[in-house]
Amino acid sequence: MDEELYTLIEFLKIPSISATGEGIENAANFLKDTIERTLGVKAYVDKTKGHPVVFSEINVNAKKTLLVYNHYDVQPVDPISEWKYPPFSATIDNGKIYARGASDNKGTLIARLFAIKHLLDKKELNVNIKLLYEGEEEIGSINLEDYIEKNENKLKADSVIMEGAGLDVKGRPQIILGVKGLLYVELILDYGTRDLHSSNAPIVRNPCIDLMRIITSLVDHEGRVLIEGFYDDVRPLNEEEKELIRKYDLDVEQLKTALGFKELKYNDKEKIVEALLTYSTCNVDGFECGYTGKGSKTIVPHKAFAKLDFRLVPNQDPYKIYELLKRHLEKNGFKGEIITHGFEYPVRTSVNSPVVKAAIEAARKIYNTEPQVIPNSPGTQPMGLFVHKLGIRDAVSAIGVGGYHSNAHAPNENINIEDFYKAIRHTEEFLKIYASLNQ
Amino acid sequence: MDEELYTLIEFLKIPSISATGEGIENAANFLKDTIERTLGVKAYVDKTKGHPVVFSEINVNAKKTLLVYNHYDVQPVDPISEWKYPPFSATIDNGKIYARGASDNKGTLIARLFAIKHLLDKKELNVNIKLLYEGEEEIGSINLEDYIEKNENKLKADSVIMEGAGLDVKGRPQIILGVKGLLYVELILDYGTRDLHSSNAPIVRNPCIDLMRIITSLVDHEGRVLIEGFYDDVRPLNEEEKELIRKYDLDVEQLKTALGFKELKYNDKEKIVEALLTYSTCNVDGFECGYTGKGSKTIVPHKAFAKLDFRLVPNQDPYKIYELLKRHLEKNGFKGEIITHGFEYPVRTSVNSPVVKAAIEAARKIYNTEPQVIPNSPGTQPMGLFVHKLGIRDAVSAIGVGGYHSNAHAPNENINIEDFYKAIRHTEEFLKIYASLNQ
Repeated sequence: MDEELYTLIEFLKIPSISATGEGIENAANFLKDTIERTLGVKAYVDKTKGHPVVFSEINVNAKKTLLVYNHYDVQPVDPISEWKYPPFSATIDNGKIYARGASDNKGTLIARLFAIKHLLDKKELNVNIKLLYEGEEEIGSINLEDYIEKNENKLKADSVIMEGAGLDVKGRPQIILGVKGLLYVELILDYGTRDLHSSNAPIVRNPCIDLMRIITSLVDHEGRVLIEGFYDDVRPLNEEEKELIRKYDLDVEQLKTALGFKELKYNDKEKIVEALLTYSTCNVDGFECGYTGKGSKTIVPHKAFAKLDFRLVPNQDPYKIYELLKRHLEKNGFKGEIITHGFEYPVRTSVNSPVVKAAIEAARKIYNTEPQVIPNSPGTQPMGLFVHKLGIRDAVSAIGVGGYHSNAHAPNENINIEDFYKAIRHTEEFLKIYASLNQ
Repeated sequence: MDEELYTLIEFLKIPSISATGEGIENAANFLKDTIERTLGVKAYVDKTKGHPVVFSEINVNAKKTLLVYNHYDVQPVDPISEWKYPPFSATIDNGKIYARGASDNKGTLIARLFAIKHLLDKKELNVNIKLLYEGEEEIGSINLEDYIEKNENKLKADSVIMEGAGLDVKGRPQIILGVKGLLYVELILDYGTRDLHSSNAPIVRNPCIDLMRIITSLVDHEGRVLIEGFYDDVRPLNEEEKELIRKYDLDVEQLKTALGFKELKYNDKEKIVEALLTYSTCNVDGFECGYTGKGSKTIVPHKAFAKLDFRLVPNQDPYKIYELLKRHLEKNGFKGEIITHGFEYPVRTSVNSPVVKAAIEAARKIYNTEPQVIPNSPGTQPMGLFVHKLGIRDAVSAIGVGGYHSNAHAPNENINIEDFYKAIRHTEEFLKIYASLNQ
């Protein structure tokens, strides 16, 4: 096994679940050691109020500086029973590696790192690199803003390349010019000190039903959010963005198969793309109350809680949306607790920026196909912080190892080993072209 | 420790959770051995399609036969972390025994058994006894109907005494002339094979939100059930029953403290009694979907499920209500699975029946107070089967060891040891008076 694959597998074997904190420190230290050993530069495990950031700098005295953003944390692994192989075994089966984080985004992180090493070894690295590996992306990058504020000068760069891109259903590399924003909240209703025998149902309120009524007041049957003012700041698409959406190639049947849901809300390709990329959503990530074991138990639960995410589009402001949500909850009689788990700004950057052009050209060369250029991801990343806080104009998500088969955030996450090697070459080519373009 | 208390504690140490099946067989065999050793008669562990019934007969050639119904199964113990002592340790603390099932209803079962033994020993048992101990009461007595149908002759009796009564907040014994009925269902919505990254929220339906919308369509904010025809068969209270409800003594503040909920739906005593005893309900016992762990996880869950119980009053028929529910679900677009966990008929018997008179008179003598006579329990028991299937006219719930402090179905279930001994004497007196009355 070569050094690249060996390093990836060792990295995948470290659990680094930001939601629980499991293995986070080990993963950060592993990266520091790997950078120092591989690139021959000093790396730092920088403390934050939460999980640490791993930072390093490769200064080749070039004119331009590129910030490379990845995260070393992963999603929780449950439901564990649905995994074919233990999620941190990094089992190789039929050309694939199965592991939590393989696709999102440890594979990409390691691929980029070795591309930089290869260019360094060949003395062909003509752009200064800053590496920023976060440990809280999967819990909404809750301390990244603070870290960026405190390290503004250290992090200054001309462009930033984010993770979050990968290969589409046809294996074409995606070049993504933006992200959706996010507001993640948890709502808790607790009416008592213990669950009651359900013969008391006539005389007490049931927090499950009350919380369900609150949640169904937030969004209608079609998915339209009912919070007053929610859509006020949505910016209409410009012609360039509309064109990218029209050109977006998607095989609906293939997508359906990959998702494994019996039905999609829409059958029309253009409608699906439009929804995925440009619709804001209110989604229930989880809900629990009362007895959820086998068989039956007759109780009035004293407590219910829900986890909700709102995906936002430019120019919805997550902090403003949170205020609107609170007002809605109050107006609808919600008397529980609200915990926030994340705020992220939506972003859409221009297709004509050098970092985007370099990613497109490199993709054409390595994958021998036209890449899929997307005005923004249907998902979320802290791209808004780099654009808003650091004033980096050009931000792009490009170069990733995952595909639609990759089960990001779900059981049996996996990548093709071949795609890992392609991502290394794609990064090398990208860095060379980017170095040659005027900023 | 005397034989009575020792036997109870040994019984409480056996987990017998009907929802999971844990310890059921041990508990049934323990009862068979205990009956045979204590009463000197043969006892039988009768197979059913589910958990076995323990049956025995004490024939003293009396004119009348009394069927004694209890159950040896208990509710699940979760949330386990809220128990002061392990739920099957039967820990004695300050005159109380803490154990799952102490109040509901192992204490009562053992008390009655020793009362019969005492009368047998003194040759003062003048009524034939049939003991029927069920193992599925806490999961809706799902196989009792079948057992009763198959053993109709063996079970014939003049009256039946059920469990389910206890001591009220003032320590007065309750004599309960009926029960509410029950329909328990589980609704499952499963849209896919795995949870999806929530960036897919714009293009798939979320089963959590859909199931919440279905559930909130079943019942309004005030608790009134919205299923068409649900209230059609409700029989208005007669004057005798209205009088019992007016006379029902209840300390609202004491009840509130005992329940531990911040608020009750009503403040007025008569309204609370009326609601508890005569309102039908639709209650959510449990609901689960998606990620319910610590922190956040951004997914569209593929599956959601809810456990619901409907408490019914005379003459609502649980099978008919089930049909109405199915029609409602279909009309409201529910495309999931329905599992039934129990059907029970509501009952209200006459205050003038001998078995009721005997229970009242015995209670006055032992507790030196006026018992609380209640037209029906706010809870549920399979009393309807004995009345409907076996044609037993007189059915009563009386003589129990639990009080309002007892936390039935909740953590820290407990009884006063003193109440256990009083229940033995109450049963003895009851049997003597009942034997002396004309049926």
